[in-house]
Amino acid sequence: MIYFDHSATTHPYPQALHTYQEVATKIFGNPSSLHSLGTQAGRILEASRRQIAELLSVESSEIFFTSGGTEGDNWVLKGVAFEKKAFGKHIIVSDVEHPAVKESAKWLSQQGFDVDYAPVDKRGFVQVDKLAQLIRPETILVSVMVVNNEMGAIQPLQAIADLLADKPTISFHVDAVQAVGKVPVSDFMLDRVDFATFSGHKFHAVRGVGFIYKKSGKKITPLLTGGGQEQDLRSTTENVPAIAAMAKALRLTLEDQEAVEKLKSMRDVLAESLASYDGVTLFSETGEDFAPHILTFGIKGVRGEVLVHAFEEHEIYISTTSACSSKAGKPAGTLIAMGVPTSQAQTAVRISLDTSNSMAEIEQFLTIFKQIYQKTEKIRH
Amino acid sequence: MIYFDHSATTHPYPQALHTYQEVATKIFGNPSSLHSLGTQAGRILEASRRQIAELLSVESSEIFFTSGGTEGDNWVLKGVAFEKKAFGKHIIVSDVEHPAVKESAKWLSQQGFDVDYAPVDKRGFVQVDKLAQLIRPETILVSVMVVNNEMGAIQPLQAIADLLADKPTISFHVDAVQAVGKVPVSDFMLDRVDFATFSGHKFHAVRGVGFIYKKSGKKITPLLTGGGQEQDLRSTTENVPAIAAMAKALRLTLEDQEAVEKLKSMRDVLAESLASYDGVTLFSETGEDFAPHILTFGIKGVRGEVLVHAFEEHEIYISTTSACSSKAGKPAGTLIAMGVPTSQAQTAVRISLDTSNSMAEIEQFLTIFKQIYQKTEKIRH
Ligand SMILES: Cc1ncc(COP(=O)(O)O)c(C=O)c1O
Ligand SMILES: Cc1ncc(COP(=O)(O)O)c(C=O)c1O
Repeated sequence: MIYFDHSATTHPYPQALHTYQEVATKIFGNPSSLHSLGTQAGRILEASRRQIAELLSVESSEIFFTSGGTEGDNWVLKGVAFEKKAFGKHIIVSDVEHPAVKESAKWLSQQGFDVDYAPVDKRGFVQVDKLAQLIRPETILVSVMVVNNEMGAIQPLQAIADLLADKPTISFHVDAVQAVGKVPVSDFMLDRVDFATFSGHKFHAVRGVGFIYKKSGKKITPLLTGGGQEQDLRSTTENVPAIAAMAKALRLTLEDQEAVEKLKSMRDVLAESLASYDGVTLFSETGEDFAPHILTFGIKGVRGEVLVHAFEEHEIYISTTSACSSKAGKPAGTLIAMGVPTSQAQTAVRISLDTSNSMAEIEQFLTIFKQIYQKTEKIRH
Repeated sequence: MIYFDHSATTHPYPQALHTYQEVATKIFGNPSSLHSLGTQAGRILEASRRQIAELLSVESSEIFFTSGGTEGDNWVLKGVAFEKKAFGKHIIVSDVEHPAVKESAKWLSQQGFDVDYAPVDKRGFVQVDKLAQLIRPETILVSVMVVNNEMGAIQPLQAIADLLADKPTISFHVDAVQAVGKVPVSDFMLDRVDFATFSGHKFHAVRGVGFIYKKSGKKITPLLTGGGQEQDLRSTTENVPAIAAMAKALRLTLEDQEAVEKLKSMRDVLAESLASYDGVTLFSETGEDFAPHILTFGIKGVRGEVLVHAFEEHEIYISTTSACSSKAGKPAGTLIAMGVPTSQAQTAVRISLDTSNSMAEIEQFLTIFKQIYQKTEKIRH
């Protein structure tokens, strides 16, 4: 089996699962409980928070645990909107955000907020000059992802940060879900960034856990109100085993110094080989502005689903451009936003790599690709 | 060690943890993925949903997974409010709801909704006649819990259901978090109930997972928008291992036919013995209207925290009346709502039992209680 769908989800690291199991078995107090079983659970919770904060060079008090990337994105979008609505009701999100951001923005627009979508260029990058033109005195939030999940463009966050430098009343949110282990932390945890979203299962932690970074002093309304956990900003009994597992997975992921180079070399071999085929279009590029693990391409006239299933017969698992929209059969939002015609966007498949993949798998993939490609000859002509 | 704090959280059943581990290790596809790893994960997800639905005698399509009780309560309160606000903005919640409900109601009142709190009588029961008086043409939601988490009163849901029988435009939500395995499912999954909240870690599943029941056809706005999972009502990559573990834990919990009798007999021994002490007040009763696993009491003049810590020295773990508010040092909201004077409410501690407890533990508890009681003599006089 070759699993090339790591942007959809990753397998949990055995060490992370081991931590989960250990904590779930041995530490079952509720951190809110007054007694020592509660204190013990609370200590693991806070140690995990500290470890995550250190890995990101931020303060522990700036880390808030969630159930995943979608909750993080929803919380920041809706929480900032409701918190700041007295000051303004205008929000800007990029046109290529994950549905967790885009649908939150859409929901807010139904609640009387005013949403603008910052366009991207043909290569998939947010056009900062156009974003600048959208800013108004009532703008309260700008949300732009780090790595696009459909084709890997790394968004120009520093340029956006510069643009927002003299606009302190605008909160700046980055969705870092696809960035962990792929882009240096310092490239997206910029000084100007106020909020960032993370999801554990994208970096080999377990499912159903994530966190947000909220810069100290920045205000946000809770999405989950209740017992007062997480500084009264995100209530519910804390998922301590999953949180401890996530801290471990984040450390293991960020400690792997060779990851990016390894991913790049695999991706580059793929890109070079695929580009040599007639009728194959690469929707991702391989320069420094692209994440090293994602390569999106299509064969002219061959629908993405058909390719996914063709590879599946060889136990090779790839994806149409995003797991979320794949079942709905919608063409990739990002490619459409880049101006790719629908007929071409519908051919797109995404390969998303991990350091657990090997060059041998890349070669095997390319061998199978050749076979599949030959069978599509009739369709291509 | 004697753990009598099961209303705060329970230990995961080994079988549930085993399921978690199996699924997390072997089934790592994203259910949204088009390929067979996704399909495989999707099958486990749907089998879990079906099992839970069957255990509750409802349809699979009426079960929506969440991250726990707090999310469920927030979702129903806020989701129904935003969904139905064009029809009315009036909400009624009981005065003894968990903060997950009460704080959600409070947040809604800050967003222009109108909230009334239905009072309880001295014994902790919602006064249905008073609730009836609060109903208005603009009322869109009534939320009343099944079992009160601070002292165990089982709320008169059938009477409320009868009251709402001819008012189909009012959604009826019950928080069943403390009820699972303690009250027959048919006592709270009444025909008239439109929404119900459940939390896995209260019935020996793992942390960070729960579900809501939403009656077919009832409308609710998502709290988590995004990729479209859970019938587009609760987006995020599904926590399949935790969901499978929860289905197993629910089955094991509900299959235990002797549980309620066992809990009752332990609780009754505790109640009878404690009541015989001078200066001990029972805030819970032992009749059929009270959950079999919760007993709340206090020693005159002795603060709850002091008792918790005194028992802890003997490795006996009990709680002030709720884990959530215990750290904040607030007196129990439910007892205050019952009209218990603050000075007396501050003495309250809660014992919450589980079928894994034994009569031997009850006896040991009572032996230690006697010692602690004797030491408090000076305070009592
Ligand atoms: C960029 C991005 N943001 C948010 C999410 C949502 O994360 P989760 O599945 O943890 O809710 C995803 C995952 O698909 C993603 O790729
Ligand atoms: C009645 C009730 N509702 C809701 C909750 C919240 O559940 P969770 O901790 O899973 O968010 C609790 C738990 O403390 C509870 O007792």
